Amino acid sequence: MNQYTYYKTVYEKELLKINKRLKSIFKNKSPKSLYEPSDYIAKSGGKKLRPFLVLVSAKAVGAKFSDAYNAAIAVELLHNFTLVHDDIMDNAEKRRGRATVHSKYDLSTAILTGDNLIAYSYKMLVKDCKTDCRPVVNTFTKGIIEVCEGQSLDELYESETFVSLKDYKKMIYKKTAALAGMSCSVGAQIGGGSPEEVKALFNYGKYLGMAFQIKDDLLDVFADESKFGKIVGGDLLEGKKTYLLLKAIRKAEGEDHKKLLNVIKNKGIKKTQINYYKNLYVKLNVAKDAQVEIRNYTGKALKSLNIIKNEEAKNILVWLAKSMGERNS
Amino acid sequence: MNQYTYYKTVYEKELLKINKRLKSIFKNKSPKSLYEPSDYIAKSGGKKLRPFLVLVSAKAVGAKFSDAYNAAIAVELLHNFTLVHDDIMDNAEKRRGRATVHSKYDLSTAILTGDNLIAYSYKMLVKDCKTDCRPVVNTFTKGIIEVCEGQSLDELYESETFVSLKDYKKMIYKKTAALAGMSCSVGAQIGGGSPEEVKALFNYGKYLGMAFQIKDDLLDVFADESKFGKIVGGDLLEGKKTYLLLKAIRKAEGEDHKKLLNVIKNKGIKKTQINYYKNLYVKLNVAKDAQVEIRNYTGKALKSLNIIKNEEAKNILVWLAKSMGERNS
Repeated sequence: MNQYTYYKTVYEKELLKINKRLKSIFKNKSPKSLYEPSDYIAKSGGKKLRPFLVLVSAKAVGAKFSDAYNAAIAVELLHNFTLVHDDIMDNAEKRRGRATVHSKYDLSTAILTGDNLIAYSYKMLVKDCKTDCRPVVNTFTKGIIEVCEGQSLDELYESETFVSLKDYKKMIYKKTAALAGMSCSVGAQIGGGSPEEVKALFNYGKYLGMAFQIKDDLLDVFADESKFGKIVGGDLLEGKKTYLLLKAIRKAEGEDHKKLLNVIKNKGIKKTQINYYKNLYVKLNVAKDAQVEIRNYTGKALKSLNIIKNEEAKNILVWLAKSMGERNS
Repeated sequence: MNQYTYYKTVYEKELLKINKRLKSIFKNKSPKSLYEPSDYIAKSGGKKLRPFLVLVSAKAVGAKFSDAYNAAIAVELLHNFTLVHDDIMDNAEKRRGRATVHSKYDLSTAILTGDNLIAYSYKMLVKDCKTDCRPVVNTFTKGIIEVCEGQSLDELYESETFVSLKDYKKMIYKKTAALAGMSCSVGAQIGGGSPEEVKALFNYGKYLGMAFQIKDDLLDVFADESKFGKIVGGDLLEGKKTYLLLKAIRKAEGEDHKKLLNVIKNKGIKKTQINYYKNLYVKLNVAKDAQVEIRNYTGKALKSLNIIKNEEAKNILVWLAKSMGERNS
């Protein structure tokens, strides 16, 4: 077994444990009208990257995975809250092939389920505080505030004609990267890391999150559909202001520029136009630009790890950052 | 100035301070799309009973009002969160004469505003923790979970034909009383109270909350409209399962029983029928039953204060409980 296969095994083993824990957390709780949908969303699958970041960050500063298990669950429950409420705001019927909470149940149930998930995430979080839990609670709370601000910016940008790449980066920082950074910071704090270690791991998570989101935007258009698991071009169909679209708009001239602005003006394109826009992206070489950004952020993430002493945890984080950049789905 | 006037002055002075603080908390924060509605709801008025309970409970165990100011704001922000999200679930257009957040802005904004208010409430709460803040955070979190469970039960009972008085009490405990109890408990913990004092003040708040809610139900039908500020009979119009309606259903026989069940079956009555039902309540003497309940809960609240040593705080809490029972609006 080579080193990378080993890290993958570690990740998959923890993934199983996290999923097992998530399956039991809302079981048989009353009232069913609240806890059945909570159980449903907690079992909805996904990569479980955020809880894994909590665990590895705790290890990175010298603690054990088991010291941060509740905090890992806390971060995943918080992520679930964002999914439930975001799906309402996005009018999404499905998520990962399953009905969203508000479409399976109803609007009120989905709102309440999300609210209660926030409370449960705090409940789990503080279980892992050994001494003063104020800094951990503050970091966690800041993460939630960033996510809400990011979602608000996302909603705002949806209705705006012009969004700059700087605006876009600010939004994905708040919506995605801050939560990844928070996950690492919480793990490091619970593990008893020094302020420098906590900061370094926060930065690692933050840069990883930025790379992750731009990679998501890239995959949406340039993924191999057989491996992707979602329809290629979904963001274009919805008229989403992705890194690729915003970069393309900035680079294009004349007719190309006009065509790209139409994606925003018409709030999306038709299925038959996906190839046309994909070709336009190729012509403007924006996939390359995205790859450069991803490489830059990944590089910064890896550089943040310089001060980390625990070799195994450090290697896992390096592997994770590299796999994120190379993933197909 | 008699004693009661003095306590009222203390309350009104703190009310001004709380309102001043609430006015500044979201001012000039960005993004406006999130903080303008937060500011709007934070300025929406109301009795500010919960934050006042935090302050007086801190004083009751020997601390100063100023020791618990942030926690008082936390509890009020949490209450605001419940208003914003409950108004969505209840399809309410107005609250205290102003447009609700989702009707003034939109659904997404209201959901996000509520979510962010939860986070902000934690942010404020932990500012007042001096030593280990885990117990306070746990108490606060438990309060949120109870509120979510209570709201879920409320939604559930809305669609059920038969709801017992026991069910009703469980629901109002979770939806209203638990938060009042939590407010007192948080204040007492921050003030450095002993476990017995914390428990006693939690009980005081809990019983006060129960009395408060049943009084609300009573006022809805039997208030003096000129003092009430709302339309009398609103709960009947909406077919709400109040203490009075459920008690009346339990006591009534024959035609009366059938008429009362119609309120639920038809999801409310017409404006012209309010007097008919008011007379039915009079005939069944359910206002008296409600008054007995209110008196019982108020009595239990006052009895909980036996172990409280700080005379001024104790007297304020006694005054508060008595005024609650005697209020007209």
